[in-house]
Amino acid sequence: MPAPATGSTALFTDRYELTMLQAALADSTAARHCVFEVFTRRLPTGRRFGVVGGTGRLVDAVTAFRFGPDDLAPLQGVLDDRTLEFLAGYRFDGDIEGYPEGELFFPNSPVLTITGSFATAVILETLVLSILNHDSAIASAAARMSSVADGRTLIEMGSRRTHEEAAVACARAAYLGGFTSTSNLAAGRRYGIPTSGTAAHAFTLLHDSEAEAFRAQVAALGTGTTLLVDTYDITLGIATAIEVAGPELGAVRIDSGDLGVLARAARTQLDGLGATGTKIVLSGDLDEYAIAALRAEPVDAYGVGTSLVTGSGAPTTGMVYKLSEVDGRPVEKRSTNKVSHGGHKQALRRIRPSGTATEEVVFRASGPHPDLGEHDRVLTVPLMRGGEPVSGLPTLAESREHLRAAMVSLPWEGLKLSSGEPALPTTLAFS
Amino acid sequence: MPAPATGSTALFTDRYELTMLQAALADSTAARHCVFEVFTRRLPTGRRFGVVGGTGRLVDAVTAFRFGPDDLAPLQGVLDDRTLEFLAGYRFDGDIEGYPEGELFFPNSPVLTITGSFATAVILETLVLSILNHDSAIASAAARMSSVADGRTLIEMGSRRTHEEAAVACARAAYLGGFTSTSNLAAGRRYGIPTSGTAAHAFTLLHDSEAEAFRAQVAALGTGTTLLVDTYDITLGIATAIEVAGPELGAVRIDSGDLGVLARAARTQLDGLGATGTKIVLSGDLDEYAIAALRAEPVDAYGVGTSLVTGSGAPTTGMVYKLSEVDGRPVEKRSTNKVSHGGHKQALRRIRPSGTATEEVVFRASGPHPDLGEHDRVLTVPLMRGGEPVSGLPTLAESREHLRAAMVSLPWEGLKLSSGEPALPTTLAFS
Repeated sequence: MPAPATGSTALFTDRYELTMLQAALADSTAARHCVFEVFTRRLPTGRRFGVVGGTGRLVDAVTAFRFGPDDLAPLQGVLDDRTLEFLAGYRFDGDIEGYPEGELFFPNSPVLTITGSFATAVILETLVLSILNHDSAIASAAARMSSVADGRTLIEMGSRRTHEEAAVACARAAYLGGFTSTSNLAAGRRYGIPTSGTAAHAFTLLHDSEAEAFRAQVAALGTGTTLLVDTYDITLGIATAIEVAGPELGAVRIDSGDLGVLARAARTQLDGLGATGTKIVLSGDLDEYAIAALRAEPVDAYGVGTSLVTGSGAPTTGMVYKLSEVDGRPVEKRSTNKVSHGGHKQALRRIRPSGTATEEVVFRASGPHPDLGEHDRVLTVPLMRGGEPVSGLPTLAESREHLRAAMVSLPWEGLKLSSGEPALPTTLAFS
Repeated sequence: MPAPATGSTALFTDRYELTMLQAALADSTAARHCVFEVFTRRLPTGRRFGVVGGTGRLVDAVTAFRFGPDDLAPLQGVLDDRTLEFLAGYRFDGDIEGYPEGELFFPNSPVLTITGSFATAVILETLVLSILNHDSAIASAAARMSSVADGRTLIEMGSRRTHEEAAVACARAAYLGGFTSTSNLAAGRRYGIPTSGTAAHAFTLLHDSEAEAFRAQVAALGTGTTLLVDTYDITLGIATAIEVAGPELGAVRIDSGDLGVLARAARTQLDGLGATGTKIVLSGDLDEYAIAALRAEPVDAYGVGTSLVTGSGAPTTGMVYKLSEVDGRPVEKRSTNKVSHGGHKQALRRIRPSGTATEEVVFRASGPHPDLGEHDRVLTVPLMRGGEPVSGLPTLAESREHLRAAMVSLPWEGLKLSSGEPALPTTLAFS
C-alpha cells in the first residue's frame, strides 16, 4: 500500500482561480452546474500517441485539496470574508470521469471531465493540469522508450535532472510507461516501485585502485552487483571486475563512449572470461532513438535519465481545462482559431476483431451514443463520485498493464519513432 | 520570512548513493576527506550564459536531510545495520561554498563545492543536483526573458504546465530571474513572491454575457482589475470592458491571436475611449523571442507560462557532482573525452574599470591564487560551515538584485538571444 500524499494541495493554485470564485460567489453564478473538460488540441510535434499519466496522483491530490488555517492566512489580503469562509469549508463534492491512467490519448480526446458547481470545479484547474500535463509527458516518453527497448530492462535514473519532487512523479510515470525500476528511493517508498542502482565513478575514485573499489563493492553488495567499469580503461576495468568478482558477477555498467561498440567488445571479453551470465548495462544520454540504435547490440539493460525526465523533447503536455457546459448549455470560446467543442463529451475506441484499434470516437454524454461494436472499448470511466474516489480504481501495476495492452492495439505505424500523424484519427460524432 | 520547507528530504536520493556508502563504511574509505564539485561541461546549445538558481532552497534542503524512522523503514531490506545506524544519526557536518544564487555561470565554473568525509558528502549528490539543475534551468530562461522585456512587467503563470511542486520552485526561479510576480499562491506563501492574476475564459463563459462577467469581476475586484477581452470578439470585448469599468480600468488581457497587431489596435481603441491609463497584458505561448518581437508594440505586461517552466528549450542544466579531491589528492575520471580537472577549485571574474566582465578565472583553492584586480570579483563564497548555514546568506530579493547587476556586467553580445558562444571565456589558472 503506497503511503498517501501528505499535506494540503490547496495552494498549488493560480491566484485567479480564487478571485474568479470570489466574483462568482458575489453574483451567484458560482452555483451554476458546470462541466470542465481536460483535453489537448495537438500532440507534441511528430508524436503519434500520448499516454495519460497521473490520474492516480490526481485523485489523491483532489482529496487533499482542503484549505487549512495555514493556507488561508496568506489569502487574507487577497480575498473577501465570504470567499475565505467558502474555502475553509471546501471539499470537492463533484464528479470526475475520464480516461483511466495508462490509456492512450490523441488530439481532442476528452481525457478528464470534472462536473460540479462552478465554485467546486473551477478552483481545481491548476492542480489538475499540473499533474496531468507533467505525468503524461513523462509517461508518453517512457512508453516510446519501452516500446523500442523490446523487453530489455529499463532503469529510470533521472532524478538529478529534475526538481526533487517532480523526480518522484517521473519515476512513477516511467514505471507506468513500462520501465523496470527506478533509482529514486522516495518513489520506492511512496509507490512501491522497485528500486535499483549500481555505483558512481566517485566510488572508484575514492579508492586507491579500481580493484580495491570493486572489492569493497562486491564485499558489501555481493557478486550479483553491477560494477561500473569505465572510470579508467574499460577493457582493464572489465578484466579487473571479473578478477575480483569472478564469472558470477551480476553486471557491468558502461556510462560513456561509443556504447554500441563498447557493448560488443564487453560481451566478447566477458564471454572469453567465462562470465557468460554477466549482464551489460548501458547509460549516458540515452533516449528512445539511442535505445533503438542499440537494438542489435548485446545490451541487457538501459539506464535512462535526462531524456526521460524531460519528456524527450516534450517536457509538458498541452492539456487545457475548458469550461464546456453551463447549466446544460454547451459553451465555447469563439474569438480565434482555437477551436473547441462545447458540451459534456465521452469517448470510445473502435477496435477490429483482430485487436487493432482504428478510430477514437468522441460523442456527447447526453446522447445519442454511437453503437458499441463487439470489440470496441468505452474509454470514459468514473473516477470520483460526489467527491469520493470510486471503488476499485486501478493500482499503478494495473495501469501499467493497461498501457501495455493499449499499445499492442495500435496500428503498427503508430509505434514508429519517426515523426508522423496521430496513430488514430479522432472523430467527433456530433456537429 | 518565508515558511521553511517541511519534511525530510532524505529519500530524494538515488539508491546507489546509500549502497556506495555501505561499501565505503565497510572498508573504512567512508572517512576519507573528500571534495565534490558541481559544474557543467557546457551550456545548453547556443546559450551565452547560465544563472545559478536554487542555492537558497539547497541550503534548506541539506539542513532537512535527516533520516527519520519513516525514511529508514523502506531501506531495511536494502542496507545493512551499520549503514542504517549511520543514516539514523546523519546530519551534514561538512562545508559548502560556491557561487551565490543569482550569479552567472559558464562551462567549468565551479558552481558549488561540498567538502566533508565521503560518507557525509556523497549522499547529497542527487538532492543537490535536482535542485541546482532544475532551478538554474528556469532562472536562466527567466533572465533571458527579463532581459528582453526591458523593464516591462513579467508575470509567471506556468504552474499548470509543470509538476505542482516544481511549479513553486519555478515561480521562485522566475522571480530570481527578474519576473515581477507569479500566479502561484504556494510561491507567494512560501517565498513571499508577489502574486497576481486576471481571469480565465471560463469566467466569461459562465455568465450569460461578456458584460455580465465583466460587471461581476469589477464589482468583486475593483476597476483596477484586468479584464480578459478575447473570449468572443476582441474589439467588442474592449468596448464592453470600458463601458462596464469606465476609463479607469486597470488592464485588458489578450491571450490569443496575432498579439502585436492586436496590442496596437487595442491601444488605439482604449485611447479613443479615454482609457489612456488602461494597461495591455499579453499572454499565450510567449517566450523570449516572442517578447523581443513585441518590443515595439504598446505592451505593458507579459504573462509567460509554458516556455518559462520548461526552461525555453533547456528544461534542465547539465550540472554534475564530481569527486575532485580525496585526502588532499586531486582525482578525475580518465577513460573518455569527458575532461574534468581534479582538485578543489574556486573562481573569480575579471572586470574592467568600466564594469564590463572579461573572463572567468578558475584556480586551485590550495593556491597560488591569481592577483585580484581592483574591480575583479571573487565568485566563490561560503554557504554552509560545519553543516550550518553561514549567517547573512542573501535573501531572494538580494539574489535577484545580484543577478540584475551581474547581467549588466556582461559584454553586450552576451545578452543577445541568438545562438552563440559563452559570453565569457573560462580560464583554468593551473595545468
